[in-house]
Amino acid sequence: MSATRYTYLGPEGTFTEAALRTLPEAATRELVPMVSVPAALDAVRGGEAAAALVPIENSVEGGVTTTVDELAKGEPLMIYREVVLPIAFALLVRPGTKLKDIKTVTGHPVAQPQVRNWLAAHLPDAVWESSASNADGARLVQEGRFDAAFAGEFAAATYGLEPLVTEIHDAANAETRFVLLGRPARPAAPTGADKTSLVIWLGDDHPGALLELLQEFAVRGVNLMRIESRPTGQGIGNYCFSVDAEGHITDRRVGEALMGLKRICPKVRFLGSYPRAGVAVDDVRPLRPGTTDEEFIAASDWLAHCQDGRF
Amino acid sequence: MSATRYTYLGPEGTFTEAALRTLPEAATRELVPMVSVPAALDAVRGGEAAAALVPIENSVEGGVTTTVDELAKGEPLMIYREVVLPIAFALLVRPGTKLKDIKTVTGHPVAQPQVRNWLAAHLPDAVWESSASNADGARLVQEGRFDAAFAGEFAAATYGLEPLVTEIHDAANAETRFVLLGRPARPAAPTGADKTSLVIWLGDDHPGALLELLQEFAVRGVNLMRIESRPTGQGIGNYCFSVDAEGHITDRRVGEALMGLKRICPKVRFLGSYPRAGVAVDDVRPLRPGTTDEEFIAASDWLAHCQDGRF
Amino acid sequence: MSATRYTYLGPEGTFTEAALRTLPEAATRELVPMVSVPAALDAVRGGEAAAALVPIENSVEGGVTTTVDELAKGEPLMIYREVVLPIAFALLVRPGTKLKDIKTVTGHPVAQPQVRNWLAAHLPDAVWESSASNADGARLVQEGRFDAAFAGEFAAATYGLEPLVTEIHDAANAETRFVLLGRPARPAAPTGADKTSLVIWLGDDHPGALLELLQEFAVRGVNLMRIESRPTGQGIGNYCFSVDAEGHITDRRVGEALMGLKRICPKVRFLGSYPRAGVAVDDVRPLRPGTTDEEFIAASDWLAHCQDGRF
Amino acid sequence: MSATRYTYLGPEGTFTEAALRTLPEAATRELVPMVSVPAALDAVRGGEAAAALVPIENSVEGGVTTTVDELAKGEPLMIYREVVLPIAFALLVRPGTKLKDIKTVTGHPVAQPQVRNWLAAHLPDAVWESSASNADGARLVQEGRFDAAFAGEFAAATYGLEPLVTEIHDAANAETRFVLLGRPARPAAPTGADKTSLVIWLGDDHPGALLELLQEFAVRGVNLMRIESRPTGQGIGNYCFSVDAEGHITDRRVGEALMGLKRICPKVRFLGSYPRAGVAVDDVRPLRPGTTDEEFIAASDWLAHCQDGRF
Repeated sequence: MSATRYTYLGPEGTFTEAALRTLPEAATRELVPMVSVPAALDAVRGGEAAAALVPIENSVEGGVTTTVDELAKGEPLMIYREVVLPIAFALLVRPGTKLKDIKTVTGHPVAQPQVRNWLAAHLPDAVWESSASNADGARLVQEGRFDAAFAGEFAAATYGLEPLVTEIHDAANAETRFVLLGRPARPAAPTGADKTSLVIWLGDDHPGALLELLQEFAVRGVNLMRIESRPTGQGIGNYCFSVDAEGHITDRRVGEALMGLKRICPKVRFLGSYPRAGVAVDDVRPLRPGTTDEEFIAASDWLAHCQDGRF
Repeated sequence: MSATRYTYLGPEGTFTEAALRTLPEAATRELVPMVSVPAALDAVRGGEAAAALVPIENSVEGGVTTTVDELAKGEPLMIYREVVLPIAFALLVRPGTKLKDIKTVTGHPVAQPQVRNWLAAHLPDAVWESSASNADGARLVQEGRFDAAFAGEFAAATYGLEPLVTEIHDAANAETRFVLLGRPARPAAPTGADKTSLVIWLGDDHPGALLELLQEFAVRGVNLMRIESRPTGQGIGNYCFSVDAEGHITDRRVGEALMGLKRICPKVRFLGSYPRAGVAVDDVRPLRPGTTDEEFIAASDWLAHCQDGRF
Repeated sequence: MSATRYTYLGPEGTFTEAALRTLPEAATRELVPMVSVPAALDAVRGGEAAAALVPIENSVEGGVTTTVDELAKGEPLMIYREVVLPIAFALLVRPGTKLKDIKTVTGHPVAQPQVRNWLAAHLPDAVWESSASNADGARLVQEGRFDAAFAGEFAAATYGLEPLVTEIHDAANAETRFVLLGRPARPAAPTGADKTSLVIWLGDDHPGALLELLQEFAVRGVNLMRIESRPTGQGIGNYCFSVDAEGHITDRRVGEALMGLKRICPKVRFLGSYPRAGVAVDDVRPLRPGTTDEEFIAASDWLAHCQDGRF
Repeated sequence: MSATRYTYLGPEGTFTEAALRTLPEAATRELVPMVSVPAALDAVRGGEAAAALVPIENSVEGGVTTTVDELAKGEPLMIYREVVLPIAFALLVRPGTKLKDIKTVTGHPVAQPQVRNWLAAHLPDAVWESSASNADGARLVQEGRFDAAFAGEFAAATYGLEPLVTEIHDAANAETRFVLLGRPARPAAPTGADKTSLVIWLGDDHPGALLELLQEFAVRGVNLMRIESRPTGQGIGNYCFSVDAEGHITDRRVGEALMGLKRICPKVRFLGSYPRAGVAVDDVRPLRPGTTDEEFIAASDWLAHCQDGRF
């Protein structure tokens, strides 16, 4: 029954599954690993699943381009939740394997830059070969194809391995951000600590277009939290921008900024308004004076009075 | 009966009267000269007159500060029409006076810079003394107090004088702009070639405030036609700005810009939306793409769809 | 001998003379009153005087347009000093005159708005007629032409009058700013609390030109203290801007902003860099990070290294 | 001998080798394939090679993150040339293989999105597995591990394969941009059609920082051709920007913009000024008025005159 099924980027034992299990409702859902981000999303688009959890951004490697591009160009989906997970790797081995025995290591290509320094220091002669996922790497170790795999410590049990070293991460603060995607519907009500995600296309050949895009936000006091350029696929030099802004689409300042973008940009896609992970209402940056809903409403009343000559 | 009475900055025979007579309805109104701009306006505020015509801007001398300050700080009035009149002076004398006889000349202080070069060239030894108005100067010549007065050629007959020299004006393109003021009411419908007048106060001590003010217009594609700073009377360094913008308050782009100003500025006063003098609809600068009413409405519809999750 | 002669806007007994006497060097100069601002300035241009003190801005009435326009359009002069004087009027009468005896009052037109409320409250029936200067009004009272004159209290002695009422000023904080003008020369060294005056012409028909002008300042962190629009005399809608900016022309950020204006505006006139009146170095607003001379020099060194490939 | 050795991202038979061979000097260099971008670059840093050619941007997949991050964070290198190559794949098979025989296909992960539609249409049941490079995929076909590989047609001969289908590319205009990197040195003289590459770090927690970054370019009339965000590795929400701007570092407008960035941003890295691939001088967008070298020099002369009081 699709309403109780959530897909995620599998296989089992990945960080994505760990992220999904942080959501309270995960306990009562059927969690289905899928072989790729497109597969996880297509299950939602096709109605076989209610939602999909996939990674969208990695603090070391940047955007997860498949997810970003699927959201920009695929059949529309909406973001309902985000989960941010600190990323630390464990070196998983078959029971009994010692560090000096390790000749070959594997892991997802995204893991490599996060463990590169550790490898150079502790296993300088080990040969790295990429696997399709961290969990897949663990499976290949289980099967004997590699001596060790970098994966989440939680994956050890699933594959009958043991963590030889834990908490490996080259960059401090390594995190991955995941999003829970569903079919478009009315966004949840604002919580006071929300973000709004968009994809914005720029006109072909207008050098100031990005500056104008940013000014639509700035003039309404809407802060950007993330901006990531993506090629449109129309040739070198054509970009769209994946953007996260502070606030909720029902906030007046956010709504007016979105309308401004809609008017001046060839295409804008709304990806959802949803609670910011790990940010309490009290931690939200104060609004710039003149940009609260109350001030927007007061200005609208004033305009109506002016238009009627009542002042 | 006040509904048929228009006041104007007198006395009779001034450029203001000439400007007023260019309005078609002037033929059926009682035209009453007043001794000062405040007097002309107070008659409207008090209900004794339906409207007042006063000068507001002079292309040589700049803003007519009494009018600008009355509109900014006095009891609210609204601009319903503007009249732009080319300004050229005649040298009015008692019949028979010759150029070589002229030892003393008079005229309004505003006239002086417009005839300074002519005086230096043709009457270098004549002594100038200011009069309260150009027409008043003509009267003083009639009474024998001065030998000649600079005034509009149309004033000669009223005061029994003759124009000795005509078309005197130092600056080419000298013009004065006059406004017809009435009590606040619903502005006339847009004609397609309109302007909107405002007075905008800036916050006390914020160096970027003027830039932000201009960006509220720029981001909505609203062009400014005039911006004039005026002291607020709160000490050196405190200004408000008298502004004319292209467009009508019922244009979406103008309305949104006004609301933006209302939100970020301590005070905004709407002075009216009215047809631009001497500008046909076909002469209006094309709108920047993305700023037509249709585009504003389409963006608003799109936002509503996004907020409802219907896309 | 011109090097010791300072002209000022006369006659004797005006606020301008009072302002001039606040300058320490005034004690050793020959102070010569002139009949008009142009006359005071022409004496400097012609070499008959070393400097001229004239009013340039009034916190109630705004710019003194003759001075502003002379600096913008006349033969170049430079501002070397500014003096700011609080303005309060005394009502000067012939000895023995009582308030109830006063039927006619006079004063400079600029004085009128500053005493209007006082007049309405205390002499509602008195007839006002403007005089050429406040001091001239005092002289006319001395001669019996008027019953009372508004002028500075210091003018009483000069004209054999007595101050019947003092400290009259409708607006709190009424001030006039005066400038000491000389022929162009190298500006005095920066004091740390300086301002730079400019006149900037905008291109004819470019709606965003004023915004671009302001951005040349903003991007280099140069705050504007005053901006006043003036007609160029080329017809309604053509303006130049008289601007005071914080800082000295030898400050890197100011110099780069001036060069930016010079490049994008049809005409820029430098009017001088000079100490701010009444502002101590400690009271100056802190510079925006990245805009100190040290940071400009470090950036210039870095650029040279990049251009040489040494990094 | 290092001066004649160029490394490139291998193995032989990749698009990178094809791009390198478009450079005239390639004919007289020893061309050495390396196993990774870091390996190719480290050979240059260590002095074993004079230059390295690596991909930096793909019009379908976006930035080649390893290259972008190496340039941002590794030991400094400089870009001396760029090469843009249209990307079209051939399906390489062992001689005699027919389309209906193909059960497994391989290719570089970056190739997959460019052939996805073609695969879905012509080989819907084939299983895709990624290989380390397109050429590596060809080798694996040669060895019998896969039935077909997507690679450049030029790779067929090297691996004893034949192109079964050619000109496969889902997106029209698919291109890859490659850069030739060397140790820092004085950039080549401007050609009139140049670009300048930078990496710019933004301050931690300043929402308007990106807008300010863009304004440093905009105010000097410097157009941006590409802007790509990259995580700094300091946690979600910390970005640096990889930027290509029109013009050469010795152009005054570019130099002033770079100095502006240097002053306001915590870190800026210059990556080189070099000729734009495939753009003739006549095709370059005209400069904005006020931003030519001549205008910069004239403004600088004017400033010196003002500072000396000679005007």
